[in-house]
Amino acid sequence: MATASETESTYEQFLDHVKRLHYVSDAGGVLQWDQQVMMPSGGTPARAKQSSALSTLHHDLLTDDQLGEWLDELEDADLDPEQEAVVREVRRDHERAVKVPADLVERISEASSNALPVWEEAKAEDDFEMYADTLEEMVELRREYAEAIDPDRDPYEVLFEEYEPYLGIDTAEDVLTQLRDELVPLVDDVADSDVTLADPFEGTYDEDDQHALVEEALDTLGYDWDHGRLDTAPHPFSTGTQFDARVTTRFKPDDPMDAIGSTIHEFGHATYTLGLPQEAYGTPLGDNRDLSVHESQSRFWENHIGRSQPFWDLFTDTANEHLGIDATPREFYEAANEVYEDNLIRVEADELTYHMHIVLRFEIERDLIRGDLAVEDVPEVWNDKMEEYLGVRPDTDAEGCLQDIHWTNGALGYFPTYTLGSVLAAQLDHHLREDVGDVDSLVREGDFDPIHDWLTENVHRHGARYETDDLVQEATGESFTADYFLDYADAKYRDLYDC
Amino acid sequence: MATASETESTYEQFLDHVKRLHYVSDAGGVLQWDQQVMMPSGGTPARAKQSSALSTLHHDLLTDDQLGEWLDELEDADLDPEQEAVVREVRRDHERAVKVPADLVERISEASSNALPVWEEAKAEDDFEMYADTLEEMVELRREYAEAIDPDRDPYEVLFEEYEPYLGIDTAEDVLTQLRDELVPLVDDVADSDVTLADPFEGTYDEDDQHALVEEALDTLGYDWDHGRLDTAPHPFSTGTQFDARVTTRFKPDDPMDAIGSTIHEFGHATYTLGLPQEAYGTPLGDNRDLSVHESQSRFWENHIGRSQPFWDLFTDTANEHLGIDATPREFYEAANEVYEDNLIRVEADELTYHMHIVLRFEIERDLIRGDLAVEDVPEVWNDKMEEYLGVRPDTDAEGCLQDIHWTNGALGYFPTYTLGSVLAAQLDHHLREDVGDVDSLVREGDFDPIHDWLTENVHRHGARYETDDLVQEATGESFTADYFLDYADAKYRDLYDC
Repeated sequence: MATASETESTYEQFLDHVKRLHYVSDAGGVLQWDQQVMMPSGGTPARAKQSSALSTLHHDLLTDDQLGEWLDELEDADLDPEQEAVVREVRRDHERAVKVPADLVERISEASSNALPVWEEAKAEDDFEMYADTLEEMVELRREYAEAIDPDRDPYEVLFEEYEPYLGIDTAEDVLTQLRDELVPLVDDVADSDVTLADPFEGTYDEDDQHALVEEALDTLGYDWDHGRLDTAPHPFSTGTQFDARVTTRFKPDDPMDAIGSTIHEFGHATYTLGLPQEAYGTPLGDNRDLSVHESQSRFWENHIGRSQPFWDLFTDTANEHLGIDATPREFYEAANEVYEDNLIRVEADELTYHMHIVLRFEIERDLIRGDLAVEDVPEVWNDKMEEYLGVRPDTDAEGCLQDIHWTNGALGYFPTYTLGSVLAAQLDHHLREDVGDVDSLVREGDFDPIHDWLTENVHRHGARYETDDLVQEATGESFTADYFLDYADAKYRDLYDC
Repeated sequence: MATASETESTYEQFLDHVKRLHYVSDAGGVLQWDQQVMMPSGGTPARAKQSSALSTLHHDLLTDDQLGEWLDELEDADLDPEQEAVVREVRRDHERAVKVPADLVERISEASSNALPVWEEAKAEDDFEMYADTLEEMVELRREYAEAIDPDRDPYEVLFEEYEPYLGIDTAEDVLTQLRDELVPLVDDVADSDVTLADPFEGTYDEDDQHALVEEALDTLGYDWDHGRLDTAPHPFSTGTQFDARVTTRFKPDDPMDAIGSTIHEFGHATYTLGLPQEAYGTPLGDNRDLSVHESQSRFWENHIGRSQPFWDLFTDTANEHLGIDATPREFYEAANEVYEDNLIRVEADELTYHMHIVLRFEIERDLIRGDLAVEDVPEVWNDKMEEYLGVRPDTDAEGCLQDIHWTNGALGYFPTYTLGSVLAAQLDHHLREDVGDVDSLVREGDFDPIHDWLTENVHRHGARYETDDLVQEATGESFTADYFLDYADAKYRDLYDC
């Protein structure tokens, strides 16, 4: 066994390497932000080469034999719990990268680039046939990828762990099934309700006015402009580090709630990133836990704050002023929570039915990867499930199974994290209220500091130190559970729709 | 000797490596652009680490032993002239990088970071004493750097070649001496002239109006917005690739000519970058020749176009409209070319006296590096030379030897390239007019295509294929010479100032 000082020296070299990996990855993040927000269209060929060079360097650093040797040595050494967590996280990334042959990574990347225009055209032409071979190829490549990582496990499970490494596919499946079973009747009741929620919007709203409004929303919620910025992007996202976490949003002329919701959602992501410990930047202790937890932060702010009555009690005057309307807080609240009847598109869905969109995608992609569903049958299965879970049947595949970009990108296994994030947001919200007290009053007064403090203390500051469920335990004193979300959704929508 | 197919295979591997190097460097350029234009202030610590990680990776790739072996093999092989040029350029960068010990690179980088706040404070406090040790350290480090590269040559020559590798220090020194000898009497005559040039500006001008105006200037000159963008930065610069070459500018409320000049200058740089061959991106054949040539392109557009009477014949209506004034083309022309009496600051200098600022800096930095001047004597020597060359003596070091950031950055040997660029601009301008014909009429008509075409054909498309003087030969049929610049300056200023 190594002496303490040998271990210390190894750990330092190891950590330098890990940090360099992380910095290169974050540099790649800056290139991507620029590409989506700032880059002129003609820049694509050069940017593709720059990004790919950084990916290759990142991959080389991650699969470095020396890193493997350090990991072996450190796993046998006497480390403190934080060091152990760092070793655990890096080991996981290293192993997965080492196991996947470079040429497979290349083939997936190429297939994904080639798939994009095919998907775009198929969607524009509403022609699933055109896309079927492309999807087939991606499913096969991803199956191959999963087998490279672990040939003895369910390939969908392995892929899911790419996005949520620790919660386990069983938990995900249980939660999604529970939501399907309990929410479908609620969705039915809402559909049968005679209540029509208020819609205070008419005509179109200037992009400049909407921009000023969402800026005010960020101000109100406490976004730190010294460590962030707001821009527009076709598909809103947030990216960055604990020193610089940026938000993007988009504007629909006739629907200002879309920009407000997107902005607050991305603000939630950025707030998580900004809450990570600065001194641990470049290591897993300064990095976010994976996608479910990230999504819990965006959903907490988007739904539990931004779609709450207290928030609109606070923010209505500001919104009225910028939009030139005269709506009541209740009207904004209702508009923020309307369940549309013609509910075909996931990204336009409300907080309740959203999860049925996810359950459907989860079931289909799982069965595709497991070989239990043929690609050619996707459109029909999709439409059947839409009818079963949401009571609507798409007329076209463009509004059906061609609507999302995820599979085209090769992201099979990603969708469940959206719902797991919402579920966790409700669980955190419950415990926040227990610990902090009258959160509604704080929101009404615009006093968000105690909320930020609670989230930072219980979630953000831990970085990736804990595995997902341990982090949930640390924050809430209990395991991950969908119970709070189900109670919350039931109470909120039965009240709104009087059903 | 290797067979043709062995050589081809080596060359391909070599070129892949070279491209990767280049892509990483350009990724670093994106990070720097973002830092200066977009990044919130709090982002600095993370960005420093990201940029430094890319620099380290770049340095590792450049000093790679394998690269040295490929170079050895290719230098013995039968290559075509383009391949030979690529090998020549990469060899040069590789050799310099290999010769300089990593710890010296590190020490210079650290010294430069540490020097920045010292320089800023010394400048703010007008206290050269405070800065003297810092400058001394930088001079010593740079001398050490030059000795590492070649202990047998004049260290200033070696440093100068960092920025202009091929023109030779003797040419630079001859040109700067010739300019000093011939322009000082002209500057004296201008100073003695009774002529006062027009100044059509009064009060202040909105930043938005100035922004719209310089955008129109870029439109007018033919900037390709699909491959570029315009932003503001405290110190205007241009950066990018032949696919995406961006311009930055700045706005002074009371001096719209400053923004116009800066914008057109950076446009010139961007235009050079955009003229590099796209298919050679990532290799020296798709990369710019060094700083003198780059500066020749910015100065050509800034001075020979933007400060010309024909340009103001074309652009006056637009400028009047955006600025809400009613000046004549002649008034704009005069305002663009005024020689200020109190001519202390290089970056505010006119096209004529600018070079006296450069000569002075060149002489001082050369003597510092050669050990012929002590740091403590810099302020007095500076002020004496200001009096001799420009007829003014700074009252403070803040307006004297503390005004520029270059030495603080460790950039000793850089200044001469500014003047060499202007000199080359005049030489190119002369031959452009010989080849294309009535350039003044083209400018008056806003027909810039023939000018772009000539510059692309004769300068841009060659990338770094030729050494500097060979490129000048290729473009003009003769060696680099200051004669055209001197004739041009003499004619222009004697006419303007009737002297």
